[in-house]
Amino acid sequence: MKQMDGGVTSPQGFYAAAAAAQIKYKDRTDMAMVYSKTPAVSAGVFTTNVVKAAPVVWDQGLVESRETARAVVLNSGIANACTGRAGMETNKIMAQAAAGALNGVIQDKADAQDQVETEDILTASTGVIGMQLPADRIAAGAKLLAENLEDTKEAGDRAAEAIMTTDTMPKKTAVMVTLGGKEVTIGGMCKGSGMIHPNMATMLSVITTDARISKEMLTKAIKADVENSFNMVSVDRDTSTNDTYLILANGWAKNPEITEENEDYRLFCQALALVTTTLAKKMAADGEGATKLLEAQVIRCKTKKRAAVLAKSVIASNLVKTAVYGSDANWGRILCALGYSGEDFCQEKVTLSIQSEAGSLVLFEAGTATDYSEDAATKILSAKEVAVVADMQEGCEEATAWGCDLTYDYVKINGDYRS
Amino acid sequence: MKQMDGGVTSPQGFYAAAAAAQIKYKDRTDMAMVYSKTPAVSAGVFTTNVVKAAPVVWDQGLVESRETARAVVLNSGIANACTGRAGMETNKIMAQAAAGALNGVIQDKADAQDQVETEDILTASTGVIGMQLPADRIAAGAKLLAENLEDTKEAGDRAAEAIMTTDTMPKKTAVMVTLGGKEVTIGGMCKGSGMIHPNMATMLSVITTDARISKEMLTKAIKADVENSFNMVSVDRDTSTNDTYLILANGWAKNPEITEENEDYRLFCQALALVTTTLAKKMAADGEGATKLLEAQVIRCKTKKRAAVLAKSVIASNLVKTAVYGSDANWGRILCALGYSGEDFCQEKVTLSIQSEAGSLVLFEAGTATDYSEDAATKILSAKEVAVVADMQEGCEEATAWGCDLTYDYVKINGDYRS
Repeated sequence: MKQMDGGVTSPQGFYAAAAAAQIKYKDRTDMAMVYSKTPAVSAGVFTTNVVKAAPVVWDQGLVESRETARAVVLNSGIANACTGRAGMETNKIMAQAAAGALNGVIQDKADAQDQVETEDILTASTGVIGMQLPADRIAAGAKLLAENLEDTKEAGDRAAEAIMTTDTMPKKTAVMVTLGGKEVTIGGMCKGSGMIHPNMATMLSVITTDARISKEMLTKAIKADVENSFNMVSVDRDTSTNDTYLILANGWAKNPEITEENEDYRLFCQALALVTTTLAKKMAADGEGATKLLEAQVIRCKTKKRAAVLAKSVIASNLVKTAVYGSDANWGRILCALGYSGEDFCQEKVTLSIQSEAGSLVLFEAGTATDYSEDAATKILSAKEVAVVADMQEGCEEATAWGCDLTYDYVKINGDYRS
Repeated sequence: MKQMDGGVTSPQGFYAAAAAAQIKYKDRTDMAMVYSKTPAVSAGVFTTNVVKAAPVVWDQGLVESRETARAVVLNSGIANACTGRAGMETNKIMAQAAAGALNGVIQDKADAQDQVETEDILTASTGVIGMQLPADRIAAGAKLLAENLEDTKEAGDRAAEAIMTTDTMPKKTAVMVTLGGKEVTIGGMCKGSGMIHPNMATMLSVITTDARISKEMLTKAIKADVENSFNMVSVDRDTSTNDTYLILANGWAKNPEITEENEDYRLFCQALALVTTTLAKKMAADGEGATKLLEAQVIRCKTKKRAAVLAKSVIASNLVKTAVYGSDANWGRILCALGYSGEDFCQEKVTLSIQSEAGSLVLFEAGTATDYSEDAATKILSAKEVAVVADMQEGCEEATAWGCDLTYDYVKINGDYRS
């Protein structure tokens, strides 16, 4: 298994493009497309928010009812959420325009008789809630995207940039793994960076792979994967209306098709996990206003689910997040956050430590503070990546969650988002 | 029913005092006592955090096992939470010292043969988690408190000041109500102002009353009351280790004892609600770093519980709170917060409005944004007290929750709390 500097165009048969459609931003790209030269098995997980954006409703229907998809078209700037029937209409126009444009240009990118249908196009939007997407600009942008599709690394990079909103850097990665003697690649991109508290998916993430895998196994793989990757991230405890995690598998690697939970499936899942946890950590580290990545590891816990609940409670706490920002080893807030997670435990059995490249330190043990050095603690917490470890001493399961510090800039960004 | 500028000494037979015990602060009072001249029926509700501070464990035991109490002794600066057995010991020393000191000075404040036992003393602490209370200073402080007890309004004011931590102002009020021809008074004080997301109680609140009421009815009254008052407040979604809401009823008003859910009980509950919702709103408005009180009203809802869940989700959202700080009518974040509350609903039926002294405005209706004026919305949101109203159009129950905006100062206060 090998991780590399890649993205959605790393697997064979995938193309990407970005375009400046002037949806809301005037001076940057704001639409992206990811396209598979042949129909790709599709799967997705979506926000659990009952207020779902138009593209989420659209994708959920298609991923459930159809075996494959051909492309994902995405825009930033406007989320197309809380937009009623008009929003559903515009979303369909977005898919129609993409399908039409693809049919005009794919002679060299598909089989001769190949026709892309509107229902082959998955959509994703991110940005301000409540505004309507400008249909004409979306349609023009879709055309530009289709015309500029490339299967280069740079095209993947540009797509990852175009979907950014308050992100400060694009988020992408790729992993290669050998399955049945064939080299299989999984690539992905995602964007954050506010309204991030995924529950069944992250803000927006598109994963591509040239693996041959059945719809059933692909769906199973991402539903399990999301629990350890995107669902373990929180920036601000606000579960978005638009969370979408899509995967397309086009089979170009020609590996023996994965149709059951065999060794190849397990390797595929491991590679997928490397892609998605890498993206999840990048998203947490680039949370709105963040200066630090905050990781919470809950170890030696009775169950995995319980470990996950405890770990998420720590990284989601505003008081833990502000303390990490101030490099203040205020471990009482960590124990407090564990305590209100909803999980019962005996505080006398918990050992709390902090870790970073600057070292590690036990802060709390056997019911009271240890005699630790505040200076040493501050040094550890001053690193760019900081981990809190809660050893529950009750079992052998563990979970890791990722968040970030809470800073002045988070307030600045969100006190003035729409202007 | 009449509300007035009063506090814990407003009801007959109650005394209070403050003292500078140098627990952690060097230049202010940091201990308070509330004392009833005769044994007072006691009741309390406490944090649901499984990590409970020593005074919470102490009080829970006493409130359950004993009919009455005589005094509450409180300190700010150190929370006596996560302090193990040593913390329980110091807490007991705090109660012992208070009882001993009271026995030395209460000749004129009690019957001649009256003896205060250690178990007559309830305790409450607030401040930094994890540090041990200095037993000698706590004991010296308790003695000072007993010696300085007064039944004046000023003594109540001083007690409310001494329990403040990051609060910018003391929080107290009193209400008079006539029960069975007798004038009954309920007075109270509380403190915030961070780690506020009460679940069964608030940070620290002591309510006194001269009503005659049975233990059973007093307990029933505060358990119902807390659901509409302190449990409807959130500053930062961090449920504290120390949340404590205590009430003492000494019967000096000589009203016919309340022993059942009769008209007097209902009037008592109404008066209590006026005291506690006043304190709850003061606590929300004075949340750490807050510049505005944010109120969420969920109306025409199917059930009261559902309305409460939806209302709390809105006032707890970091993104709603930052938008309110920026006076930005970003209503999508409000709908989004309703959507991830865990309650299902049809967004097409929801009407969202904002209200303040500057007017009211419908922002979202029938599934989409209304054609509202951003200028008018900004004007409404620029007031010191802002309300969001979500009309669910599905029933006749409602609930109101209180929070505050999220500001630079919240980050400042909490990025640097312990220094």
